[in-house]
Amino acid sequence: MSPSTKQIRDAVAGYIATVSSGTSAEIAALYAEDATLEDPVGSEIKVGRAQIEKFYSALDSIDSTAELLTVRSGGSTAAFHFRVTSHLPDQTVVVEPIDVMTFDDDLTITSMRAVWAPEDVIAGQR
Amino acid sequence: MSPSTKQIRDAVAGYIATVSSGTSAEIAALYAEDATLEDPVGSEIKVGRAQIEKFYSALDSIDSTAELLTVRSGGSTAAFHFRVTSHLPDQTVVVEPIDVMTFDDDLTITSMRAVWAPEDVIAGQR
Repeated sequence: MSPSTKQIRDAVAGYIATVSSGTSAEIAALYAEDATLEDPVGSEIKVGRAQIEKFYSALDSIDSTAELLTVRSGGSTAAFHFRVTSHLPDQTVVVEPIDVMTFDDDLTITSMRAVWAPEDVIAGQR
Repeated sequence: MSPSTKQIRDAVAGYIATVSSGTSAEIAALYAEDATLEDPVGSEIKVGRAQIEKFYSALDSIDSTAELLTVRSGGSTAAFHFRVTSHLPDQTVVVEPIDVMTFDDDLTITSMRAVWAPEDVIAGQR
C-alpha cells in the first residue's frame, strides 16, 4: 500500500533529525540501495548508497543542525524547505534549500534533489 | 547558454504574476509545446500545451490571487512555495503548495509538479 501523507511527512522529519544528529552512515541507511542524490540540482548525480554516504560524510566533522521549515507531500513525493546551520571554527554558515524526495512503499528514500544555489548560502561571524 | 539563477527566479515570479492575473491561455503560453504538468503530484500527468491550458481554465471563472513565499533554484530547476487564495461565493480557500519546475534555455517551462495534498487546503468564511 502506498504511504499516507502523514507517513511521508514523518519520514521527512526523520530525515531532518538524522541529518541534524546522525552519522553519514545513519543518513545513508534512510536511502534505498540504488537511490539517486543530486545536491545541488544541476551537479553530478550520486547513485547508490555508498556514493550517498560519501556525500554526507563531508558533514561528519562539522557541528551542524537542521530544522524543517515547511513540508508538502503528495503521492510518494515530498518537497520541503529546511535550514541547515553549520558551526565552523570561524563562522556560522546557513543554507535553506528546498529538497524534493521520492519514497518507496517502505518509506525508504529513492531519490533526492536539493534545489539551492551558491548565492543562497549566508555566512556570518559566529 | 543556460539561464542564470536570477533569470530562473524571475521566470517563477512571472509565472506567479500570470497565475494571479492572467488567463489560462496566457499561463499555458509560458509552457513549452510538449511540457508536462502534474498537479497535485501523484495525479494524472497532463501533456502538451492544450491539456495544460484546459487544466488552468478551471481558474478562469474564479477570483484568485497567487503570491510567492519562497523560491530556490539551481541549474534549470526551480522549487517554490507559494500561496493561492481563491475567493469563492461563500468562502475563501487557501492552498500553499511547493511547485517544482524545469525550464529550457529560453525560460519556457518544460515541466511542473505541484507538491501538496488535499489536507493542505484551508477553507474559511470570507
